[in-house]
Amino acid sequence: MGHQCYTHKILSGRRDDFALLRKFKGISGFPKREESPYDCFNTGHSSTSISAALGIAEGRDLLGEDYTVLAVIGDGALTGGMAYEALNNASKMKKNFIIILNDNEMSIAKNVGGMSTYLNGIRSHKGYTRFKENLASSLGKIPVVGDRIVERLKNTKNSIKQLLVPGMLFENMGLTYLGPVDGHNLHALEQVIHEAKRIDHAVLVHVVTKKGKGYVPAEQNPSVFHGVGPFDIATGKSKQENGKKSYTDIFAESLIKEGKEDSKIVAITAAMPDGTGLTKFEKAFPKRFFDVGIAEAHAVTSAAGLASAGLKPVFAVYSSFLQRAYDQIVHDVCLQKLPVVFAIDRAGLVGADGETHQGIFDISYLRSIPNMTVMAPKNARELTEMLHFALQFQGPIAIRYPRGTAYQGFSEKQEPIEYGKAEILIEEQTGKIALLALGSMVSTGEHIVEKMVKKGVNLSLVNARFAKPIDTEMLDKLSEKGYRKILTLEEGVRSGGFGEAVLSYMETHHKEVAVENITLPDAYVEHGDVSTLRKMLKIDSDSIIEGLEEKGFFK
Amino acid sequence: MGHQCYTHKILSGRRDDFALLRKFKGISGFPKREESPYDCFNTGHSSTSISAALGIAEGRDLLGEDYTVLAVIGDGALTGGMAYEALNNASKMKKNFIIILNDNEMSIAKNVGGMSTYLNGIRSHKGYTRFKENLASSLGKIPVVGDRIVERLKNTKNSIKQLLVPGMLFENMGLTYLGPVDGHNLHALEQVIHEAKRIDHAVLVHVVTKKGKGYVPAEQNPSVFHGVGPFDIATGKSKQENGKKSYTDIFAESLIKEGKEDSKIVAITAAMPDGTGLTKFEKAFPKRFFDVGIAEAHAVTSAAGLASAGLKPVFAVYSSFLQRAYDQIVHDVCLQKLPVVFAIDRAGLVGADGETHQGIFDISYLRSIPNMTVMAPKNARELTEMLHFALQFQGPIAIRYPRGTAYQGFSEKQEPIEYGKAEILIEEQTGKIALLALGSMVSTGEHIVEKMVKKGVNLSLVNARFAKPIDTEMLDKLSEKGYRKILTLEEGVRSGGFGEAVLSYMETHHKEVAVENITLPDAYVEHGDVSTLRKMLKIDSDSIIEGLEEKGFFK
Repeated sequence: MGHQCYTHKILSGRRDDFALLRKFKGISGFPKREESPYDCFNTGHSSTSISAALGIAEGRDLLGEDYTVLAVIGDGALTGGMAYEALNNASKMKKNFIIILNDNEMSIAKNVGGMSTYLNGIRSHKGYTRFKENLASSLGKIPVVGDRIVERLKNTKNSIKQLLVPGMLFENMGLTYLGPVDGHNLHALEQVIHEAKRIDHAVLVHVVTKKGKGYVPAEQNPSVFHGVGPFDIATGKSKQENGKKSYTDIFAESLIKEGKEDSKIVAITAAMPDGTGLTKFEKAFPKRFFDVGIAEAHAVTSAAGLASAGLKPVFAVYSSFLQRAYDQIVHDVCLQKLPVVFAIDRAGLVGADGETHQGIFDISYLRSIPNMTVMAPKNARELTEMLHFALQFQGPIAIRYPRGTAYQGFSEKQEPIEYGKAEILIEEQTGKIALLALGSMVSTGEHIVEKMVKKGVNLSLVNARFAKPIDTEMLDKLSEKGYRKILTLEEGVRSGGFGEAVLSYMETHHKEVAVENITLPDAYVEHGDVSTLRKMLKIDSDSIIEGLEEKGFFK
Repeated sequence: MGHQCYTHKILSGRRDDFALLRKFKGISGFPKREESPYDCFNTGHSSTSISAALGIAEGRDLLGEDYTVLAVIGDGALTGGMAYEALNNASKMKKNFIIILNDNEMSIAKNVGGMSTYLNGIRSHKGYTRFKENLASSLGKIPVVGDRIVERLKNTKNSIKQLLVPGMLFENMGLTYLGPVDGHNLHALEQVIHEAKRIDHAVLVHVVTKKGKGYVPAEQNPSVFHGVGPFDIATGKSKQENGKKSYTDIFAESLIKEGKEDSKIVAITAAMPDGTGLTKFEKAFPKRFFDVGIAEAHAVTSAAGLASAGLKPVFAVYSSFLQRAYDQIVHDVCLQKLPVVFAIDRAGLVGADGETHQGIFDISYLRSIPNMTVMAPKNARELTEMLHFALQFQGPIAIRYPRGTAYQGFSEKQEPIEYGKAEILIEEQTGKIALLALGSMVSTGEHIVEKMVKKGVNLSLVNARFAKPIDTEMLDKLSEKGYRKILTLEEGVRSGGFGEAVLSYMETHHKEVAVENITLPDAYVEHGDVSTLRKMLKIDSDSIIEGLEEKGFFK
């Protein structure tokens, strides 16, 4: 369980810490072992709890220890494949192992798929009364298969399965099913967990709850209240809306515009229609929108299928969640050079969600993949133009852009996007030092240039645009023009990043040019607001200048 | 479907090409679009077919086209989470979509888990007769839950589910189920597919087959015949056994030895007990062995669970399959610094299996992850010692080793493994050039040194041992000693690799030293025997020497 841990945190002595929830040096929004002995396993991404708990339970049994292991999983998390992998393995348990299915019909957004429909069936199950109704109504629905006995059996099956539904799917998987139980009835909950503890193998307890229960604004807008910033308690309205457009907004609007021009464009999300901005696309083109559930691996391979059938799929996904589909990008998209567009939101530091959600690996893991192209826009306008470019491109292509307000600087200055080409934004004829900045770091580069001008140092600024392939012609040109120092800037880890690629090229082809890389460190980054984190990690303009001055870089 | 495609290849005009099956420039062992218009999607890794086909079917419907889309999936592949993610989405289909479940009780090895037990139940289903037997026998098995009605209902449920089993699990997921059908009865198969085509949504056809059907040696040893090299038709015996120990053998024997000393060591495989050598460990310590099915993501997170419970889990896995658990390594193992040992087999070029199975990305994707340590042994003995080292290490650690015969060179010369430390194997006091080789490339380095000595050029050879962290002290020392050229050698892609890390360090700290990287290209590598591939990719000793001489590297 991840965000479901708030109550647990309150009950395990962290009530007073909630003032700093998800703030720098405050408590995390997820379970975290460093924070409390009552948090036994760190989480953040979905669908991991049964696997982790199963490992713990197996460990318990091997060591001959005696404690209760209990996994809590949301029904949304059950749309993720690894939850099913874990369920498939849970049936092997020969000692007690409890899985609590916290079923509130939601992950972040409304759930999707066959499993969700199935759970709905259980929730609304009224027993025998319903059995009779279904027996009658299902007669009309079954496809005729030519065999009267088969037909009759199928009808019976459809009806009886409604009757016996509670848990049969899970029982078929080899688990004992208990439920459904009202999760807001503490007495019933205690009883069923007491029962569950007596079972000598894996047992699934199906608990039905209401997301946001007890707080009307949250009950009415559960999606908005999934992971919250400060809000007004009376109205439930967020206090943080600054009215400025985010990169997500720009992406969403641009995609709708593209979608109007080209009916082959389809959009995919893995249970994040709001977060990725695709809700708007869904409204405009409901048939061309796919919410696949928390199922990034399936999202990528089905996108490859769509592309191979002649569509133009755009998978909008957070950087850290796309990590779950690394193999599918390698194996199903890039190997076949299929034109899938990856719209990678939350690339770079994300702030309040912390370690598990920082989008700091994508440049590295995507650059390692053959046939992949990786872009990053410097501002709002460039995101729009890159999306247009990507949708015309005949191969796998990714655009990474950060969380938060879209940068508006350099909006007038915009050369057309050309494959693999960087763009010179500020050229100082007298300078010997060029800054080569990727995406979000272009504005940081701009600030460095401005601050150094005041100190009498002239710098040039290049917008890299492409993290893969890097613009080697531009690098050759910089060397020819007499540049002797290049500073690369990116919001991602060093290993396999954009900067290392530039450094590697220059070492081989222009050894006379010194290359310095500004990257994120080889470390997980805790939660906190992004500007604080940037200072801590020394990737804000002041820290970068200070660090470089110490090294004598500007001399 | 992957290896299941052989019949399809024969039927689609490639019968005569089978002489060169899985050989260099011959046909692939997997479906491949470049090879035939009848191969509509490349495969290789398990569990992808429903996702890909679902994408194709959705594309078909959006474009208003009219053709039949049919996914073939093995029952083994159904243990993989993404197959379930796809099933969960298939229920949304409003037009015909056919899934053929080819159920032969096997993936490569025997299947595991609740789903497998469930399918077994269907296969052995005898209808009403069995119903009665179960009704009686199940009475003894159900835990008493204190409520007579619940108890009675549970008993009924367990019995009726046996009766109505055929497909209820899939029907609960929102699919229509047809079957089980004998897959070796062509007439029955034709009939059921004909029926399936008439259904206006997703339908699963359950086909029961026997792996290796019709060829006794394959029927008896299906695991051995999963992906075959040349063998004697009369006896079924492999023609390739050279009697020499492979790295897999060394790993398997060493792990058993370690397991005898330390009862906390447990081993995990994702459906590859034979391929990884863990079959032997299973025999020695059945309770400490976990085959989780084709479920790499679950394997990694449950290993993290085991580690957090105090065990020492070793996940033995092929390099290309571990790609499926990148996020789980980042999120569940390394973030918590849990002591999970990754024994990465088939790292580097693998030969006959081709593009999808080459283990060429692991150095890169593992180096990007904070808190991860990555080792590679130069020979058999070093693998044993690295495994011992890894099992004592208090954090996430990986050992990558190649497919095939374990190298025996340098067996006498062996310094103790020390964290992050490289080892000098050949030191030429007069030389200015050092080769820094990782794992499988140490023997290549040895050959380069020998060949260059004959040309009058003295080179030093360093065994890197660690791809992460790199041994910066060794690099400092080489620079101090007057080395001015370093050649790194690794069997992996350049971006994010070992060589780039060395180059980056030297550029920053010892600009006077030139670094040249030998790596695999930024491309997928086709199938063929490994020595042919190495020549083609110019990473054999002769090609490397030739390439470097052209550049004047040795001058």
